[in-house]
Amino acid sequence: MDKRDIERLLESVRAGKVTVGRAVEQLRHMPFEDLGFAKIDHHRGLRQGFAEVVYAKGKTSQQVVAIVRGMLRGETSHNILITRGDATVFRAVRKLNRNAKFHPLSGAISIRRNRENFGKGAILVVAAGTSDIPVAEEAAVTAEIMGNPVETVYDVGVAGLHRLLHHREKIAAARVIVCAAGMEGALPSVVAGLVSVPVIAVPTSVGYGASFGGLAALLAMLNSCASGVTVVNIDNGFGAGFAASAINKL
Amino acid sequence: MDKRDIERLLESVRAGKVTVGRAVEQLRHMPFEDLGFAKIDHHRGLRQGFAEVVYAKGKTSQQVVAIVRGMLRGETSHNILITRGDATVFRAVRKLNRNAKFHPLSGAISIRRNRENFGKGAILVVAAGTSDIPVAEEAAVTAEIMGNPVETVYDVGVAGLHRLLHHREKIAAARVIVCAAGMEGALPSVVAGLVSVPVIAVPTSVGYGASFGGLAALLAMLNSCASGVTVVNIDNGFGAGFAASAINKL
Amino acid sequence: MDKRDIERLLESVRAGKVTVGRAVEQLRHMPFEDLGFAKIDHHRGLRQGFAEVVYAKGKTSQQVVAIVRGMLRGETSHNILITRGDATVFRAVRKLNRNAKFHPLSGAISIRRNRENFGKGAILVVAAGTSDIPVAEEAAVTAEIMGNPVETVYDVGVAGLHRLLHHREKIAAARVIVCAAGMEGALPSVVAGLVSVPVIAVPTSVGYGASFGGLAALLAMLNSCASGVTVVNIDNGFGAGFAASAINKL
Amino acid sequence: MDKRDIERLLESVRAGKVTVGRAVEQLRHMPFEDLGFAKIDHHRGLRQGFAEVVYAKGKTSQQVVAIVRGMLRGETSHNILITRGDATVFRAVRKLNRNAKFHPLSGAISIRRNRENFGKGAILVVAAGTSDIPVAEEAAVTAEIMGNPVETVYDVGVAGLHRLLHHREKIAAARVIVCAAGMEGALPSVVAGLVSVPVIAVPTSVGYGASFGGLAALLAMLNSCASGVTVVNIDNGFGAGFAASAINKL
Amino acid sequence: MDKRDIERLLESVRAGKVTVGRAVEQLRHMPFEDLGFAKIDHHRGLRQGFAEVVYAKGKTSQQVVAIVRGMLRGETSHNILITRGDATVFRAVRKLNRNAKFHPLSGAISIRRNRENFGKGAILVVAAGTSDIPVAEEAAVTAEIMGNPVETVYDVGVAGLHRLLHHREKIAAARVIVCAAGMEGALPSVVAGLVSVPVIAVPTSVGYGASFGGLAALLAMLNSCASGVTVVNIDNGFGAGFAASAINKL
Amino acid sequence: MDKRDIERLLESVRAGKVTVGRAVEQLRHMPFEDLGFAKIDHHRGLRQGFAEVVYAKGKTSQQVVAIVRGMLRGETSHNILITRGDATVFRAVRKLNRNAKFHPLSGAISIRRNRENFGKGAILVVAAGTSDIPVAEEAAVTAEIMGNPVETVYDVGVAGLHRLLHHREKIAAARVIVCAAGMEGALPSVVAGLVSVPVIAVPTSVGYGASFGGLAALLAMLNSCASGVTVVNIDNGFGAGFAASAINKL
Amino acid sequence: MDKRDIERLLESVRAGKVTVGRAVEQLRHMPFEDLGFAKIDHHRGLRQGFAEVVYAKGKTSQQVVAIVRGMLRGETSHNILITRGDATVFRAVRKLNRNAKFHPLSGAISIRRNRENFGKGAILVVAAGTSDIPVAEEAAVTAEIMGNPVETVYDVGVAGLHRLLHHREKIAAARVIVCAAGMEGALPSVVAGLVSVPVIAVPTSVGYGASFGGLAALLAMLNSCASGVTVVNIDNGFGAGFAASAINKL
Amino acid sequence: MDKRDIERLLESVRAGKVTVGRAVEQLRHMPFEDLGFAKIDHHRGLRQGFAEVVYAKGKTSQQVVAIVRGMLRGETSHNILITRGDATVFRAVRKLNRNAKFHPLSGAISIRRNRENFGKGAILVVAAGTSDIPVAEEAAVTAEIMGNPVETVYDVGVAGLHRLLHHREKIAAARVIVCAAGMEGALPSVVAGLVSVPVIAVPTSVGYGASFGGLAALLAMLNSCASGVTVVNIDNGFGAGFAASAINKL
Repeated sequence: MDKRDIERLLESVRAGKVTVGRAVEQLRHMPFEDLGFAKIDHHRGLRQGFAEVVYAKGKTSQQVVAIVRGMLRGETSHNILITRGDATVFRAVRKLNRNAKFHPLSGAISIRRNRENFGKGAILVVAAGTSDIPVAEEAAVTAEIMGNPVETVYDVGVAGLHRLLHHREKIAAARVIVCAAGMEGALPSVVAGLVSVPVIAVPTSVGYGASFGGLAALLAMLNSCASGVTVVNIDNGFGAGFAASAINKL
Repeated sequence: MDKRDIERLLESVRAGKVTVGRAVEQLRHMPFEDLGFAKIDHHRGLRQGFAEVVYAKGKTSQQVVAIVRGMLRGETSHNILITRGDATVFRAVRKLNRNAKFHPLSGAISIRRNRENFGKGAILVVAAGTSDIPVAEEAAVTAEIMGNPVETVYDVGVAGLHRLLHHREKIAAARVIVCAAGMEGALPSVVAGLVSVPVIAVPTSVGYGASFGGLAALLAMLNSCASGVTVVNIDNGFGAGFAASAINKL
Repeated sequence: MDKRDIERLLESVRAGKVTVGRAVEQLRHMPFEDLGFAKIDHHRGLRQGFAEVVYAKGKTSQQVVAIVRGMLRGETSHNILITRGDATVFRAVRKLNRNAKFHPLSGAISIRRNRENFGKGAILVVAAGTSDIPVAEEAAVTAEIMGNPVETVYDVGVAGLHRLLHHREKIAAARVIVCAAGMEGALPSVVAGLVSVPVIAVPTSVGYGASFGGLAALLAMLNSCASGVTVVNIDNGFGAGFAASAINKL
Repeated sequence: MDKRDIERLLESVRAGKVTVGRAVEQLRHMPFEDLGFAKIDHHRGLRQGFAEVVYAKGKTSQQVVAIVRGMLRGETSHNILITRGDATVFRAVRKLNRNAKFHPLSGAISIRRNRENFGKGAILVVAAGTSDIPVAEEAAVTAEIMGNPVETVYDVGVAGLHRLLHHREKIAAARVIVCAAGMEGALPSVVAGLVSVPVIAVPTSVGYGASFGGLAALLAMLNSCASGVTVVNIDNGFGAGFAASAINKL
Repeated sequence: MDKRDIERLLESVRAGKVTVGRAVEQLRHMPFEDLGFAKIDHHRGLRQGFAEVVYAKGKTSQQVVAIVRGMLRGETSHNILITRGDATVFRAVRKLNRNAKFHPLSGAISIRRNRENFGKGAILVVAAGTSDIPVAEEAAVTAEIMGNPVETVYDVGVAGLHRLLHHREKIAAARVIVCAAGMEGALPSVVAGLVSVPVIAVPTSVGYGASFGGLAALLAMLNSCASGVTVVNIDNGFGAGFAASAINKL
Repeated sequence: MDKRDIERLLESVRAGKVTVGRAVEQLRHMPFEDLGFAKIDHHRGLRQGFAEVVYAKGKTSQQVVAIVRGMLRGETSHNILITRGDATVFRAVRKLNRNAKFHPLSGAISIRRNRENFGKGAILVVAAGTSDIPVAEEAAVTAEIMGNPVETVYDVGVAGLHRLLHHREKIAAARVIVCAAGMEGALPSVVAGLVSVPVIAVPTSVGYGASFGGLAALLAMLNSCASGVTVVNIDNGFGAGFAASAINKL
Repeated sequence: MDKRDIERLLESVRAGKVTVGRAVEQLRHMPFEDLGFAKIDHHRGLRQGFAEVVYAKGKTSQQVVAIVRGMLRGETSHNILITRGDATVFRAVRKLNRNAKFHPLSGAISIRRNRENFGKGAILVVAAGTSDIPVAEEAAVTAEIMGNPVETVYDVGVAGLHRLLHHREKIAAARVIVCAAGMEGALPSVVAGLVSVPVIAVPTSVGYGASFGGLAALLAMLNSCASGVTVVNIDNGFGAGFAASAINKL
Repeated sequence: MDKRDIERLLESVRAGKVTVGRAVEQLRHMPFEDLGFAKIDHHRGLRQGFAEVVYAKGKTSQQVVAIVRGMLRGETSHNILITRGDATVFRAVRKLNRNAKFHPLSGAISIRRNRENFGKGAILVVAAGTSDIPVAEEAAVTAEIMGNPVETVYDVGVAGLHRLLHHREKIAAARVIVCAAGMEGALPSVVAGLVSVPVIAVPTSVGYGASFGGLAALLAMLNSCASGVTVVNIDNGFGAGFAASAINKL
């Protein structure tokens, strides 16, 4: 039951074809989403103007293909993002759409159908070490497919400050910064100390021993002495890119 | 050595009073901050246009008073925020400035000297339970003193959805949302599902037993199934308010 | 806006006093709880037929008194339960109502105004050691005030099976069992092995060292080799009593 | 020594064939289970009226087959449930009984020989995301094989409330609810806020990074702000289904 | 119902005064402990030949006094041990019995009424540092009151091997060794490497920071590379002394 | 330098062939083990009268064979135990000695050359569930090869007390008990409540979810409310069997 | 038995007053420390040339005074260090020695009697925030009393790099660096990236929430991406100062 | 912009070809590393005089070969170290340089081109058990390739002190000691008690059950009761060797 159905019901009430009691009963049971008029439909919101997302991990190629086929049939102007896929998934998806692009480090697959820019500025994705690049790439691909210009600065760990400071201009130019780091996870603190824009920190599971699968980096980022840092889950490049995009669209 | 000193040095070089070799030597040792031209001075950045912050916990009233007196003497148009203070600190601060205001739940003390609005929209601070209000208040006071209009919605835990949904209009109107919750920390997921603006989740240490001092809420928020949620440290209302302000100023 | 308001609106539509477009707009904004027709009002549900609950910890005596006064003024046939109170709170509450009863081990305060029995059978509360009795008492008081007959069996730890088995008749007679234990938390497994009714396990923080505040008992209960055991938070006697009551009312 | 043996012994005493001293000695050593008259025989209890259960993980197909063959030979009216099996186990079991049914997501194998309904109402199994369905399926299959009508509602995570609320009628109709969720594990709190019947929460290991194998969801559920929620082990669909069945039979 | 009752019942059966059916019914309900003939009565076992124990923590002086008074009235040849008491409890207990002895470091109070030696050899209690002595003392007092000769060697941490090796003769002479250590908990490994008798390791909560309340020592002891080491809970001197006594009585 | 060397040196001193100063110097550097006269040679102690042990995990078959060949060449009356081996290791070892015996559940391989009984009584190994048998078997094989009579009681979890109590005679007859249990690890508490002999608890990694690889069982055992329980590392059947043997030889 | 005793024994052997057999026996039992000729006496080593240390926490003023009095009576040229003391302890110690100096932030008390410089270069102590200064001070006082020149640089957290880089000259001049930081513990990584000398990282318990008492900083430091960083326990300023001193004396 | 560029700029200023304002502007933007004159270039520092390092894990053979080829082309007098490689990587590297040497236990590959000794003394690497040798080897190879004489002492666990003390001479002769141990991680405490030189402790992941992947050893080492011990990450042989080398070069 959508807005149109409610109108029809009310018109029936007005025309005396439906009693008030019966109309109350129908309204009482109308599905919630129709009341909300799309406001609380997260997925619809997700779709508006940018992209639809499929999390491929734990799904078969066939399942991903079926979902993507449905998406391609639907809104033709939407971008499509598949996260945590692999070469097999990519080959299957590419048969559906020649423009599908594979990002092998992160396993992301993107289909860009709408090249409009929805962001107000540039999103900068910074990665501490080369091993953090898959997570950074996921953030970058996500932000791009959602219609943001994205810059990247990789391999600028805090143990070699000059490498980071070499990119000061890029850093200063960003409207939102995503900062991925494993091991001790110190990079977001240093980066946030250089800027006044929001910094989204992504701990990665890069490391061994007492990194405990990214826990060390996660705790470090949550305890950042630099104000303005917020944190997402370990290895959650998608979440960071999504949040950065949400900020950049404001 | 500031910009003026560099000019003087260069003029001496030009005038032939200082050799090139000696000038190279001097430049090599010039303090970094002078080079950066304030760009990397986090504190100066913090001050620009909004507020100066003192973390009172672990400082004596005298120490806080000394710092605030210095601030009051400095830039006269800046707002001042003291976090984690108490009534004693407040009484001492109030002798310095009649406008000092105490926020007893969070222990925050604010001195508003500049009522300019730096934010582009409203920041909404949502708290799940009444016990989460101190943390929410810290976020609200921080965002306000940094020049943002702030709205609050309290006691809207997920076990009584109607209470939350009652405030849908306020929620829909916000440009940035701060969401504080203890116990199972589920509120940010639900709130982020209702909006497309950034949601900053603040886990609180409210709870007992297996809440492990807020760990349960923290983990829940990091694992939020709703996109667009980023997280700060347990009970870090200040950090959430600061990050929300940084976003709202974009 | 309640059911009556909707009827009025619809009648205005029918009478042509309100246009369909305007009615749609009004319906779109009608508060959620009115739609739900009380079904999703947890608090109202809580009140129906048994009791209203105040969690006193972190509230002043004055605050508790204010809340209880409101409750006493409201539905006169409801029982009232205050959890985690103390003697001071009790003295204040007792001035409001002579029938207030203090349960000093758990800090619970109950005002029984309705002695109707809402449960279908007896709830048995079992405690492993004497130190677990405060938590067990909270469960027992909660179940009672919600209108259930409650039996208790205390000090029947698994290291002395004969003490437990001595109460086999009581155990066999229960319709729902709440089982509180600290330290190694083994009692629910043994009890659940003796019966086929639901057993709600409450880990307590009783213990020291590697009990880690009740974590050892909690993990043990979650890993129970006996089927039919479900678990609540550490020291959450209220939650166990409430869930037992919900089951017993089926 | 069963009840019959005791009678025989007592008759010998009565007849003077056995001395009192010798009878005391024999009684003293009689196996405990004979005394309990099945009351404390968990397995017999398990069997009464519903099903026998085999946990296949860590057992070879041959071992499972041997156990099932024994069960098939025994009580012919009992249902049989094998949990955590796979296609190989299924093929082997199916040779024993044509009616064996494989539930591939959870790996459960069921042999329904008794279609009697032992439950008093319907058990509803709710799953937050599609990845939680295997655990939910295990709960559903368990509840069914124990003689309960089971309804399922899947993919109703809290980030899209409308999807959950769309099923309000089903939710309201349930006598017991099992609620499986991974990641932030918030669904049971929301569901329990909508109903007054018992809700059994099953955390799943769905998630990555700071989900720590389901720990995040487990802690969230234990800290639920909604009363009436009890929790079982991570991924323990069987335990949830069993407990729900125990409640539904009351 | 004790052995005597069973005899009486059987005699009634023999005499034809009680039917077999009725006797079966009575036997079925006879309390378990009567069947077990004290074998499973842990407390009675505890009492046989050595001591009765009161855990004073969380009990008032009055409660402890009441329990001890009962013990003093009972078996007059039993030793009495109160653990985790304090000077106040001691003064109260001493009024009951002039021989009560206070062990101030551990808070143990002992009343020795039976000086018989139940152990087969000497128990040696070793403590790594002076801060570990309270726990060691609790073990020593427990072992003594249970009738064992006890030797102690304190302040022999592994960072000064010569101090430990200085006591080699005492170490070699022990029949059972209790070894208390905090911080890195390495002492039991070194001691067990020097002997072939059983070593009971007691981690203590001595330390700070990453000792996490004794967790570091506990884990170290559980991972001991020396065979023959078994471990009790953090700070559980009583448990170690008790287990050592159980071994020494073999 | 052994005892003989010291005698020779002293005789040279006596004969005036070596000066006192030079002898002091030599003595100062003499290897420690010669001083200790085997007392602190753990390995030699291990060998005396029972067995030599090889931990096969992480070693190649060749390495194990080489070590065992050396052992077989050495003391011909010693038993040999290889823990955590597999069928491949066994086949290789069996070529060295026809009497080698494989214990497939635990991977232990034993070569019994000395059938003397060194223990004073029987060691009983109890396992809660069938999945705990590999660990229990390792304990049993270890205790046997060290010259102890060993009894086993398997599948007697606490959720079916009658199964455990059925074996009361065996339990009562043991001089030392090893008790292996995974999941909630409650069995040692119940067993220790039935006896007064030492109980060595072995947590196993049996379980899933919140068992956290045996942590739940470990914590439960450390917090046992039954006195006389000591604990070894998770899955450390060898350690438990070794400690039991050390006790049984006293 | 010291070196002199051995000489005497050997001379008796030489003189024929003691038989070889008897001498062997005596040597066999001679205390270990006499063999080691002080080499393994850690405490004596500690004293040589620098200082004697008392850990005051958990000791009464009287106990500390008694120990210090003994030290003052002994080697008159040794420095004395008391860690974790307070004003009361200081007043008591100062009565013994007028030169006692109190370091109130760390609670350290030092008595400098020997001003010789044992270090080869300067030790630099760096602290991230003002709250880390107590720990840093303990390190500095320790290093000083052990005879090292010490420099300090405080309040140079990574969120304001210019503050740290302002002190580049001091940093470059140090031979060993101690680096104390709480919260995210990132400072040692940045500092170690600037130098090639050893950096000893001290995590502090400064922070709240997810700092978990310094765990976040500890893990960060252990996972430092900068080579050359080693770590001590949380808040262990003494250990860091001691290790730095050991390095600086090489 | 390097030193030469600055000189050129200053000469242009002197010659009047460039205005002061323009020169200020250029200086302001000059890359940071040029200012620092290599002081903060960690990598350059790393290279000076010893070695370049590649962490092979997570890199393909091709990637490692490409990096090493570049290194071989660069500074011809530098040693090259590849950590965490394997036989495949080694074969590929060996084609580039005949002198490449494989250390199979640790997976390290070293190319020694410069045999100069940069260390002041010998570095001793001690390993507790044979399973700790891979980590110890990584430390030894690292220290060697950086130009230090390295000694090793393996299989000297604390449960057999005589084995460790047998090597007292070697231990006493070392200038820096690296000490690798898994399980209870006690070795560094014992070793540090024997010497006054710095001891770098490396916890290894050797162990099972409650070793939690090396956590037990890590915590033990951080809590060492022996002064002078500092710690690196679990299994971080490289870090320990690097830090030892940094100390040995002082």
